[in-house]
Amino acid sequence: MVWNTNLRWRLPVTCLLLQVALVVLFGVFVRYDMDADPHWIDKKEAENSTSDMENEFYYRYPSFQDVHVMIFVGFGFLMTFLQRYGYSSVGFNFLLAAFGIQWALLLQGWFHSYYRGYIRVGVENLINADFCVGSVCVAFGAVLGKVSPVQLLIMTLFQVTLFSVNEFILLNLLEVKDAGGSMTIHTFGAYFGLTVTWILYRPGLHQSKERQSSVYHSDLFAMIGTLFLWMYWPSFNSAVSNHGDAQHRAAINTYCSLAACVLTSVALSSALHKKGKLDMVHIQNATLAGGVAVGTAAEMMLMPYGSLIVGFICGIVSTLGFVYLTPFLESRLRVQDTCGIHNLHGIPGIIGAIVGAVTASCANTDVYGVNGLTQAFGFDGFKTNRTPSMQGKFQAAGLFVSLAMALVGGIIVGIILKLPFWGQPADENCFEDAIYWEMPEEPKSTVLHPEDSTLKPSEP
Amino acid sequence: MVWNTNLRWRLPVTCLLLQVALVVLFGVFVRYDMDADPHWIDKKEAENSTSDMENEFYYRYPSFQDVHVMIFVGFGFLMTFLQRYGYSSVGFNFLLAAFGIQWALLLQGWFHSYYRGYIRVGVENLINADFCVGSVCVAFGAVLGKVSPVQLLIMTLFQVTLFSVNEFILLNLLEVKDAGGSMTIHTFGAYFGLTVTWILYRPGLHQSKERQSSVYHSDLFAMIGTLFLWMYWPSFNSAVSNHGDAQHRAAINTYCSLAACVLTSVALSSALHKKGKLDMVHIQNATLAGGVAVGTAAEMMLMPYGSLIVGFICGIVSTLGFVYLTPFLESRLRVQDTCGIHNLHGIPGIIGAIVGAVTASCANTDVYGVNGLTQAFGFDGFKTNRTPSMQGKFQAAGLFVSLAMALVGGIIVGIILKLPFWGQPADENCFEDAIYWEMPEEPKSTVLHPEDSTLKPSEP
Amino acid sequence: MVWNTNLRWRLPVTCLLLQVALVVLFGVFVRYDMDADPHWIDKKEAENSTSDMENEFYYRYPSFQDVHVMIFVGFGFLMTFLQRYGYSSVGFNFLLAAFGIQWALLLQGWFHSYYRGYIRVGVENLINADFCVGSVCVAFGAVLGKVSPVQLLIMTLFQVTLFSVNEFILLNLLEVKDAGGSMTIHTFGAYFGLTVTWILYRPGLHQSKERQSSVYHSDLFAMIGTLFLWMYWPSFNSAVSNHGDAQHRAAINTYCSLAACVLTSVALSSALHKKGKLDMVHIQNATLAGGVAVGTAAEMMLMPYGSLIVGFICGIVSTLGFVYLTPFLESRLRVQDTCGIHNLHGIPGIIGAIVGAVTASCANTDVYGVNGLTQAFGFDGFKTNRTPSMQGKFQAAGLFVSLAMALVGGIIVGIILKLPFWGQPADENCFEDAIYWEMPEEPKSTVLHPEDSTLKPSEP
Repeated sequence: MVWNTNLRWRLPVTCLLLQVALVVLFGVFVRYDMDADPHWIDKKEAENSTSDMENEFYYRYPSFQDVHVMIFVGFGFLMTFLQRYGYSSVGFNFLLAAFGIQWALLLQGWFHSYYRGYIRVGVENLINADFCVGSVCVAFGAVLGKVSPVQLLIMTLFQVTLFSVNEFILLNLLEVKDAGGSMTIHTFGAYFGLTVTWILYRPGLHQSKERQSSVYHSDLFAMIGTLFLWMYWPSFNSAVSNHGDAQHRAAINTYCSLAACVLTSVALSSALHKKGKLDMVHIQNATLAGGVAVGTAAEMMLMPYGSLIVGFICGIVSTLGFVYLTPFLESRLRVQDTCGIHNLHGIPGIIGAIVGAVTASCANTDVYGVNGLTQAFGFDGFKTNRTPSMQGKFQAAGLFVSLAMALVGGIIVGIILKLPFWGQPADENCFEDAIYWEMPEEPKSTVLHPEDSTLKPSEP
Repeated sequence: MVWNTNLRWRLPVTCLLLQVALVVLFGVFVRYDMDADPHWIDKKEAENSTSDMENEFYYRYPSFQDVHVMIFVGFGFLMTFLQRYGYSSVGFNFLLAAFGIQWALLLQGWFHSYYRGYIRVGVENLINADFCVGSVCVAFGAVLGKVSPVQLLIMTLFQVTLFSVNEFILLNLLEVKDAGGSMTIHTFGAYFGLTVTWILYRPGLHQSKERQSSVYHSDLFAMIGTLFLWMYWPSFNSAVSNHGDAQHRAAINTYCSLAACVLTSVALSSALHKKGKLDMVHIQNATLAGGVAVGTAAEMMLMPYGSLIVGFICGIVSTLGFVYLTPFLESRLRVQDTCGIHNLHGIPGIIGAIVGAVTASCANTDVYGVNGLTQAFGFDGFKTNRTPSMQGKFQAAGLFVSLAMALVGGIIVGIILKLPFWGQPADENCFEDAIYWEMPEEPKSTVLHPEDSTLKPSEP
Repeated sequence: MVWNTNLRWRLPVTCLLLQVALVVLFGVFVRYDMDADPHWIDKKEAENSTSDMENEFYYRYPSFQDVHVMIFVGFGFLMTFLQRYGYSSVGFNFLLAAFGIQWALLLQGWFHSYYRGYIRVGVENLINADFCVGSVCVAFGAVLGKVSPVQLLIMTLFQVTLFSVNEFILLNLLEVKDAGGSMTIHTFGAYFGLTVTWILYRPGLHQSKERQSSVYHSDLFAMIGTLFLWMYWPSFNSAVSNHGDAQHRAAINTYCSLAACVLTSVALSSALHKKGKLDMVHIQNATLAGGVAVGTAAEMMLMPYGSLIVGFICGIVSTLGFVYLTPFLESRLRVQDTCGIHNLHGIPGIIGAIVGAVTASCANTDVYGVNGLTQAFGFDGFKTNRTPSMQGKFQAAGLFVSLAMALVGGIIVGIILKLPFWGQPADENCFEDAIYWEMPEEPKSTVLHPEDSTLKPSEP
């Protein structure tokens, strides 16, 4: 069948409608929270606080900027490894994230920051909006190269909604701890994306196989994404933790876990190649699994060696996944996972949820101190009667809720995206920028240059 | 006419003379301000302050580093989209910015930080120096590819001076608010640069037309610049705002405006292409217009929805500018705007100034609170009698002053740069690194590689 | 002689053994320091501190993240200038740094953070671990392209150990000041690496000469590294300085020194080329020498003009070094310095140590104030009797100790690395990713593409 990939009206109309709706909803609902409002000066006086430093901005803003870089440069460039899909990887990630953060500010605001008829936004809301979009970027990795920007906007619209509901259930109803989002961001995002790509299965995808690989420089661009994700992950896992020791500890644990993960990823990558050569795919992805897997427990007393062990295991599991599981998923389960998110976010996310549940259930006053334990898990107010072991069980429950939400939501959204009028590319035109982008014409002298020559056949 | 582009003596002499002069002037005038001086410990005791956190360093430094990245990586890589001008884009931007920040420390210091015979520099001076250089980077975008590094240093010398005078008039005489520099940085920088390139009009520029476009990877490098500018813009607009809520609010408004701008830029880019394809030029530039246009109002009570509206409009206006206005300017007004700064900084800068004027004139105690209003606009001391509506008029006046300074200054500087002995390239050698850079010799096996083959014809 | 570069078992075994050892050692020794421990809440109450802001995390974390970027993106991409060694430059740097930071946390912990049977780690330990690894990255630059990842891990194992011993001697026994590490990081790292590459001298290296140069895009990738190093260097030199004015001052001085260094590097680069053209090698490296050379004195009262003078000199010296000294070292002294670290870290490091010694010996109460002087140099406790001039002599002694440690250590480690079973490449296969990396197969249409064609001959 022939697809119409001309988005001339579909994409602009979708973007403009969504943005107009956002403007209206922001007008009706969104205001500044007290720390970003001029009345803050009065609040300060009321509290006899003499220091502007107590403004939430100074506790969270540096972490926010790091997370922001991870979402736009980290995820965007991580996906530029494809030889002919760099514009789309960076550009579509840019588009869906820019839409997603606005939509997330509203949904998360209604659930968590709604006060006297208005959503009060501050720097923590910006971080959480970036987090929410992070799970969409994860899902994007599964469908990368096979969907149109219109489909991505639709997917973002639904996924942000489902994410916020799931997050509300976990954080407010089950009262689980998940500061780094092993469950809410990674597990949910990964299995949601995998379900969507399973529904969108393309039997004829082999026709664009030659473009589903990298070229020398595209792998270097991807390393920019990998490194910014890797370096800023300690900020990611600590960004919304409690002030003081919790934020401090979350950064240390993530730093340790990621470091260990690099060594085991390299070890397995080499061991699994007949000539002992390293594979860029593993270095770009498996090295990050350690950050995913301490997402829940990073702010807890996981201990530095505990973090190393988690990273150690995840580097191995993730690399094995790329070598054995991804091909299996594609051939047997009809799951075409372009970026291998199952290995980077899926399994490590589940490991992270389990690690979090175990760490929480082992918490005690010897390790945390009486005040420390209460503060770390919020064992007061409604939760006064909850014990660490109960907390552990609730953590585990959170994992299953996230998986269920991801599978059900993914099926529904996948079916919607399967409709034939979203401008998706034909099987032989997947992983090709030229479908949706005006391409630069190469200098005449370079008729034999790869970009140029691979361009022609793939023109629809 | 044949130009001599051999800079062997002109460039070194210019650099060394300027740097020697800077060393002498720094020796005579520049010292540390109290927060960076060892006597700060005594000041702390005098003020009974117990916390080192009150040092200005901790309020501003993270924002400073983000701004620093925008100037050197953001602007530098944004201009690498040209296929054969990457070394010059990044390298010359590096050179002029490194000179400009030193010169700006002096000039802005004399105007704003001169105390007891010395300029007292602290982190806020570093930020302002980066801001000042930002306006030079903007102007560089207009003349990109058509000038020599010597001309760029001369231009920087004059533009930094004019910038500082203009900034003094606006901030100290008119007492306008312009924390993010919609007027002082963007409007001034853009119209200054456009005037210069108008004076330097090259009728024969079409001879190097084939190099005035991008290649596949050069557009990806440019996206690195775009994204770092986009991500860190909230830091840019909040970097020198008042401590506390103002800084917090400026970041939120900029974040919102930029997000909305992305969706409308994409919408217009697709709608204006006959096949509905996206154009990298728009994604790289128009998506940033929203940050420019909230530069003045970001710290005011623009409200999140107000920011979305500003971004919404600017994405549309900026993309339309690239499609219709830039060609018109070149063909009719003889303004050859290489990077289209008129669309990214010119018009959005004017919009930003107007938005700021309107927002200021609408300020009232209901929204800001009594203390908040006084603090936000400094309605005390000399300004006790100024009302918001008067403030609005002063803001508008600031726009016209900036435009006048830019046009007059641009004409003068343009005439100076037109002198024939600055080593500028011939029309057929524009947009070509090989004129000023030692180029790597490509491996023998790649005689057909684009870089290599386009190199020869353009060798002077 | 034919080398076996198949690392299938050697690399995995090395990585896994090292990581297992690290897990065990962390389990036995490493715990959180008080600011990252839940008991911090009790400490806070005990100190009547009401603000979480006093947690060390908020003083150091933003600087830590900047330093982290310098180590992984800065050094990693700086070395991607080689046309066929990008994967290895970024990937091996990633590997050795990930191992090094863990090993450094232990060694530096035993020397500096050992308390009641445990190493207490906090954000400052993370910064110092990154610093330690920075000296390994420096040494990596000397042997780049000529060693296997196994050799790099061995080198890191020993160099981190020697670094920690040397650092202990300087900071604890000689009590010298070296916040930015001119001596401990740069001088030590550079001369250690140069000694190692001298021992590993390869007479037949000319056989892979054609790959020891850059291509157009590889030089642009390298500029990413250069700029992130340049921009974040103020954070590097101020990261572990005293709170308040010292950190503030260190950032200002580094900013000034680096700016001046750019202009003189450009001047010399142009002056030393027969056609006055700029050389990317100089722009990528010499521009950074100013940051190295204020490493020791940045936190002292070097004064802004003093910083400019240091940067001014280092830009000249470093560029001259690349043009005249590097070829001399290779031809006469058999030192094959791939990245020219002698010009970027060696000489500037020595200059930095001298500048630090002089600045320290000139310190007096007029400039620092009584309290300021005591705090700046810690002239209390054991050092009550030490005068500035004595401090200057101790600083000088620190330089010689660092050089001695580097030379002796480099010889020993070099001899170990010379053993034939580490999987090092043959002379004709140096600077070639294909030895250790699974390379992407270029699209069929591009048989004439450089990557592809240069690949074949160099396949072992």
